[in-house]
Amino acid sequence: MRNPLSDKVIRMKPSGIRKFFDIVSEMPEAISLGVGEPDFDTPWCVREEGIYSLEKGRTFYTSNAGLLELREEICKYTDRRYKVAYDPKKEVLVTVGGSEGIDAALRSMLNPGDEVIIPEPCFVSYVPCVELAGGVPVTICLKNENQFRLQKEELEAAITDKTKLLILSYPNNPTGAIMEREDLEALAEVIIKHDLYVISDEIYAELTYNSGHVSIASLPGMRERTIVINGFSKAFAMTGWRLGYALGPAMIMEQMTKVHQFAIMCAPTTSQYAAIAALRDCERDVVHMRESYDQRRRFLLHEFNEMGIPCFEPYGAFYMFPCIKEFGMTSEEFATRLLNAKKIAVVPGTAFGECGEGFLRISYAYSLEELKAALGRIKEFIEELRKSEFREEKYD
Amino acid sequence: MRNPLSDKVIRMKPSGIRKFFDIVSEMPEAISLGVGEPDFDTPWCVREEGIYSLEKGRTFYTSNAGLLELREEICKYTDRRYKVAYDPKKEVLVTVGGSEGIDAALRSMLNPGDEVIIPEPCFVSYVPCVELAGGVPVTICLKNENQFRLQKEELEAAITDKTKLLILSYPNNPTGAIMEREDLEALAEVIIKHDLYVISDEIYAELTYNSGHVSIASLPGMRERTIVINGFSKAFAMTGWRLGYALGPAMIMEQMTKVHQFAIMCAPTTSQYAAIAALRDCERDVVHMRESYDQRRRFLLHEFNEMGIPCFEPYGAFYMFPCIKEFGMTSEEFATRLLNAKKIAVVPGTAFGECGEGFLRISYAYSLEELKAALGRIKEFIEELRKSEFREEKYD
Repeated sequence: MRNPLSDKVIRMKPSGIRKFFDIVSEMPEAISLGVGEPDFDTPWCVREEGIYSLEKGRTFYTSNAGLLELREEICKYTDRRYKVAYDPKKEVLVTVGGSEGIDAALRSMLNPGDEVIIPEPCFVSYVPCVELAGGVPVTICLKNENQFRLQKEELEAAITDKTKLLILSYPNNPTGAIMEREDLEALAEVIIKHDLYVISDEIYAELTYNSGHVSIASLPGMRERTIVINGFSKAFAMTGWRLGYALGPAMIMEQMTKVHQFAIMCAPTTSQYAAIAALRDCERDVVHMRESYDQRRRFLLHEFNEMGIPCFEPYGAFYMFPCIKEFGMTSEEFATRLLNAKKIAVVPGTAFGECGEGFLRISYAYSLEELKAALGRIKEFIEELRKSEFREEKYD
Repeated sequence: MRNPLSDKVIRMKPSGIRKFFDIVSEMPEAISLGVGEPDFDTPWCVREEGIYSLEKGRTFYTSNAGLLELREEICKYTDRRYKVAYDPKKEVLVTVGGSEGIDAALRSMLNPGDEVIIPEPCFVSYVPCVELAGGVPVTICLKNENQFRLQKEELEAAITDKTKLLILSYPNNPTGAIMEREDLEALAEVIIKHDLYVISDEIYAELTYNSGHVSIASLPGMRERTIVINGFSKAFAMTGWRLGYALGPAMIMEQMTKVHQFAIMCAPTTSQYAAIAALRDCERDVVHMRESYDQRRRFLLHEFNEMGIPCFEPYGAFYMFPCIKEFGMTSEEFATRLLNAKKIAVVPGTAFGECGEGFLRISYAYSLEELKAALGRIKEFIEELRKSEFREEKYD
């Protein structure tokens, strides 16, 4: 029998996050700080609306682009929170989480050989989805000393005459970095000069802990060249509902809707009804969850400082990205030893690109109690490492 | 500003079904016989399980491949109903409806230029999804006189040295055709001889009205070269839940799971819990719905016979595919005139491929009352057409 598989797909590495958690799932006493999803149940008012829609028998397809009522709420919310106006009839597509939105945007926009600039470390899907869509990923290695913000010089240096798209993702997974208005303005200049388009993954937009989130689409000249990806998973603790959306110029959204129609049909109906309630009635829940994350974030930052582990202050998402280069081992080795010795699971920075080497992603989407217990064990582990190193030096 | 779009995507035509229903949605007194989804609400026992899982706060991601408990139920069900055994851990992927399963299979298997044989008339997604995945669709025009079953000679004639895949879809949308064991055996011989793989879209498998459905994967030598696509939309009236699955050899499913992981993450969690109940507790509901469809099917067949409109007896799905060639107009013209004159919406056969010319797709996923009202109007329309034709002939 011949080989049934696509060469491109065989070459794609599976996510480096998964590998770790297959091990963790067989280790019941382990504490995981690895998962990228809120620890909160979806707010009750959202679940209640889902339940009501099931009771009412709303179990049919919606239109391909999503319920008009939901698209209207999404536009109102985006205008209210991020000061960008979209037409609910032509500029919104309701997707199966943010993931499908990114995939559909790439499939709608890339011709074979088009280059897509991807600043790393970043979410695990960008590189494989670009490759699947026939594009060529061009990665930029973001720097700790810039707090992992993309610099305009870095962007300039990566642009060739084949560059079509830039994928921006702030607040960032895995670093927790954000980009402020001035940072984005500097980028926008380069983007416009080189006539690039942007896929701006703003799935963590509600989770910022200093000033609020600024969407690059709100800057002059950027709305017409940006596809904003957002969704309900992180802000509203709705990961399992698989509901996101894409916002952009009608001309692009029309093609994305076609791809979505053939590949997916429509997003889940119950989730769509529930999401209307999320946008209308859940602001208080969002604020409450954000405050909890912020409390945990400050706790972790303090703990890592105490341990003498360098960690820049992350103002977004729910991740810390501490640097463990002093121990002279790879992120993967550190994470593996920490898991075996102390039963604490964290994700090696390299799961998010090679330039994550020397870093760990620590999620704080866990209760303070769990975080305290986990940090205690991490502290022990680090003290033991430092001691053994000292001994080795002494007797070497 | 440069063109932001993919050439391939621009060339893709939007679905010919939609166009019609955008018109219908603005015509409140119209009766539609056009939609491809059950008219039944999802059975209560399924909705109840969805509600329960929301109450319990099961709102998190599942594993990428889907809940293991659901995969186990899917395997038991497939073995029980269609006599093919799959390993729940390695040979099942839970998808966002059948649509995503087809798309993920094509993306996992096709290299640029690989030819995919697609017998038409067929579901609207196959051709665009093959093109999106970089493959080359090669269509076969199925014949009314063969009851739209694929003949081995037709298949042989379409095979080149670039052929990799065949998409089979029986029971068929839009014709209602089925393939019986002997028909499939004849094909299997050709498929094995030419070392092809098959994507067998069996989403209507529960809806057959003579002998039961035979899966091509159950034939000797075919399991290892078949990806079966199935789901909950049609059999369990669960379209809005967006839940399907793919079954196939571990080697292929592993790659499909990777594509699914990056592009989608996982299928909706509430739907997955509800689907377990569907497979365990809903056989009676499925039987009841099938009996209703059968009653309507026989009614329509009788009516079209009475009208003298040729229509082969469809033994599957919930569609009739009557031939309207006697009226000397295109399917599109006939459907448009019927809609304008009598406010009845049906889908032109050409929405499912050029060889649907001269046919209409009539869905009987409508109550008998609606069908009776609609058929009354169709009868009037046809009588008027025949009379005016007669007059024209007389006075020409």
